[in-house]
Amino acid sequence: MKNLLSMEEVSNEQIQAILKRAAEFEAGAKPHLERDYLIANLFFEPSTRTKTSFETAERKVGATVIPFEAGFSSTLKGETLYDTVKTLESIGMDAVVIRHKQDAYYEELLEGINVSVINAGDGAGQHPSQSMLDLYTIFKEFGKFEGLNVTIAGDISHSRVAKSDVTALRRFGANVNFVCPPEWQGEFKESHSEWGDLIETSDVIMLLRVQHERDADYEGFTTESYHEKYGLTVEREQRMKDDAIIMHPAPVNRGVEIDSSLVECDRSRIFKQVHNGVFVRMAIVESILKERK
Amino acid sequence: MKNLLSMEEVSNEQIQAILKRAAEFEAGAKPHLERDYLIANLFFEPSTRTKTSFETAERKVGATVIPFEAGFSSTLKGETLYDTVKTLESIGMDAVVIRHKQDAYYEELLEGINVSVINAGDGAGQHPSQSMLDLYTIFKEFGKFEGLNVTIAGDISHSRVAKSDVTALRRFGANVNFVCPPEWQGEFKESHSEWGDLIETSDVIMLLRVQHERDADYEGFTTESYHEKYGLTVEREQRMKDDAIIMHPAPVNRGVEIDSSLVECDRSRIFKQVHNGVFVRMAIVESILKERK
Amino acid sequence: MKNLLSMEEVSNEQIQAILKRAAEFEAGAKPHLERDYLIANLFFEPSTRTKTSFETAERKVGATVIPFEAGFSSTLKGETLYDTVKTLESIGMDAVVIRHKQDAYYEELLEGINVSVINAGDGAGQHPSQSMLDLYTIFKEFGKFEGLNVTIAGDISHSRVAKSDVTALRRFGANVNFVCPPEWQGEFKESHSEWGDLIETSDVIMLLRVQHERDADYEGFTTESYHEKYGLTVEREQRMKDDAIIMHPAPVNRGVEIDSSLVECDRSRIFKQVHNGVFVRMAIVESILKERK
Repeated sequence: MKNLLSMEEVSNEQIQAILKRAAEFEAGAKPHLERDYLIANLFFEPSTRTKTSFETAERKVGATVIPFEAGFSSTLKGETLYDTVKTLESIGMDAVVIRHKQDAYYEELLEGINVSVINAGDGAGQHPSQSMLDLYTIFKEFGKFEGLNVTIAGDISHSRVAKSDVTALRRFGANVNFVCPPEWQGEFKESHSEWGDLIETSDVIMLLRVQHERDADYEGFTTESYHEKYGLTVEREQRMKDDAIIMHPAPVNRGVEIDSSLVECDRSRIFKQVHNGVFVRMAIVESILKERK
Repeated sequence: MKNLLSMEEVSNEQIQAILKRAAEFEAGAKPHLERDYLIANLFFEPSTRTKTSFETAERKVGATVIPFEAGFSSTLKGETLYDTVKTLESIGMDAVVIRHKQDAYYEELLEGINVSVINAGDGAGQHPSQSMLDLYTIFKEFGKFEGLNVTIAGDISHSRVAKSDVTALRRFGANVNFVCPPEWQGEFKESHSEWGDLIETSDVIMLLRVQHERDADYEGFTTESYHEKYGLTVEREQRMKDDAIIMHPAPVNRGVEIDSSLVECDRSRIFKQVHNGVFVRMAIVESILKERK
Repeated sequence: MKNLLSMEEVSNEQIQAILKRAAEFEAGAKPHLERDYLIANLFFEPSTRTKTSFETAERKVGATVIPFEAGFSSTLKGETLYDTVKTLESIGMDAVVIRHKQDAYYEELLEGINVSVINAGDGAGQHPSQSMLDLYTIFKEFGKFEGLNVTIAGDISHSRVAKSDVTALRRFGANVNFVCPPEWQGEFKESHSEWGDLIETSDVIMLLRVQHERDADYEGFTTESYHEKYGLTVEREQRMKDDAIIMHPAPVNRGVEIDSSLVECDRSRIFKQVHNGVFVRMAIVESILKERK
């Protein structure tokens, strides 16, 4: 891969290679990079886990990370994203990791840019590294995707995680269902407006954060009534299958998408996802850097 | 020590071990760390000296520092401090250094968190690494604490330095006095509202910054009348004992707590404190990381 | 050199030594530093290329870079620049790179400060590292300065690049002309208010950015009429000498100082300047650090 922009552009073989390499890193494998690579993280939106995870993974594979303060850069002087990235390329970056509020911001970078681009989230578009760590987490748990029932619940329309995950999960044979208020179903017209029996039949229940910063409001709900109708309550958790797991890309609105007491319950993989993310991003970064001469 | 949260929880032996190790570092000793450790600095309040000092000390003991921009993290999306710290733990941090405006913020981190926490200042609570560098500076000067007269003057009620220092100094046998406007004495009801003969009898005069950012105002004083009544004026400095020293945790409001011309005078240890801070923080960070497996 | 503050204080021999060393770095030479040096970058104004370039150059010469977030430092508590720099010196920095909005901010650092200061831009004053990379770029192109015709066009009065470049270029024998609206000529009273035949006779045309953040407005022009009268239009570019080159310190206001289609045209050296900047800054940083014991 030269770039990692969207799950739709990544082949099943590429995904499987990333998951395999992530497992090797988790088992203690050493990275294979033959020269010193420079990489910068351009986060134009706030982030804790994705940015820190990339920062850590980049150092662990042996790259040199050059700091970039998006909120204090020349974009404040009106510089375009293209010119910013071209500048970093001219300085010698091999790769840039970008999070940006504009959907598909990377399209303006496809021509004329030689530095590799890793998409860490584009507006309400895609979030492929999150998707790969979700796949890694699910595969570690069940050893397969085929036939698994995955239910994604919450603020679907604003979620790049939902869009990235469903693309990949369905290609690998999982059944993906959605539960959300009708106003939030976005492109997923087959979504359910009630849980129905999805609690009892799901192997994976993935909650999504209500994204107030993307103008989500509760569409007539209070925090409490939203939790009651669409959240994972303690009562619902008790009806889940014995070996079913809970996922959430985080940050969590405790008491909204999920009862606070469930965030670290036995079947929650929420912090495990974060833990897995470092190995997956090591694999992504190594894979992209190795293709550069 | 797993954590360093407050001077009240640290034994005299632990303090002495830190001071001894700091002196070794100042004399050129090499750190003893047997693996690569990850550490992050979460400064939710502005800082120059404490943050830069920790950043430097961490690198000098050989830790890998993962950048964290508190003002651009998921706390902006409403993530709790607990979830932020748990996330960094999941990513693989061994320790986090935290400054936060909330008093005793660390209490919500005592359960469920395995990463080590080093308190770099909690609201108007404690600032233990500053306290240890103050102790180090005093001990280097006088070779003892027993019987020393230490006078702390200024904005006591908002000062975490005052609270941390007095705990430790008294345990080691120093006499600590306070001079401040009555409104600022906080918990120290024995404070003096006039200098009296404390100028002439003190071995150490420690000035504290008026903390406008914590809603301190001059309580009826102008800058000039405050300086005249509570500041270290040129005239007062001339009445100090021959070998008495001046300290200040900085940043300094020049001309308020202390006359600008005294900041770098012979008996000032203000920048020496900063210099000493790196060795003391190397000792703290090494001590905490070494206890992790 | 202990410091690099202004092109006016640097001798021709010092400049030539920097350019020679930069060429060696570009050809693959290794840096010569005999111990570990600490350096911090204090950018009190937004920057992408200068800051990232220094961050990269510092790492490439083997220095340890200590992060400093100017927008979240104790300057917010009213700390003076002097005290901030003295603090960093006390922590152990060998050098600080500073960008600050105040003209000649460094004058208050000349006494009492031992850490080396590299000026990365002072208000509307000087920008010596940019000037040296401009010289490097021109010399690489033409192998000389003597007799070259260099035209600088645009917002001269707010430009530290113009002031730094003209000092050096004239000392090395180049003919420097200016084209700008009369209101923007600043100290360069010999400037032209029309291009005249400068397009046809120039070896180098250097465009300057209209600096809205320094209160520049178009002085009665619209974006379009400014571009038409003072910008490098496609039509003007076609009248340039065969081997003449285009330069711009960037960031570029596309369609204002220069037609967007010319930013990466054959004779543009705009991104080449950025590329060259890393080698020049490696030479600057190495030169300054080597003089410290």
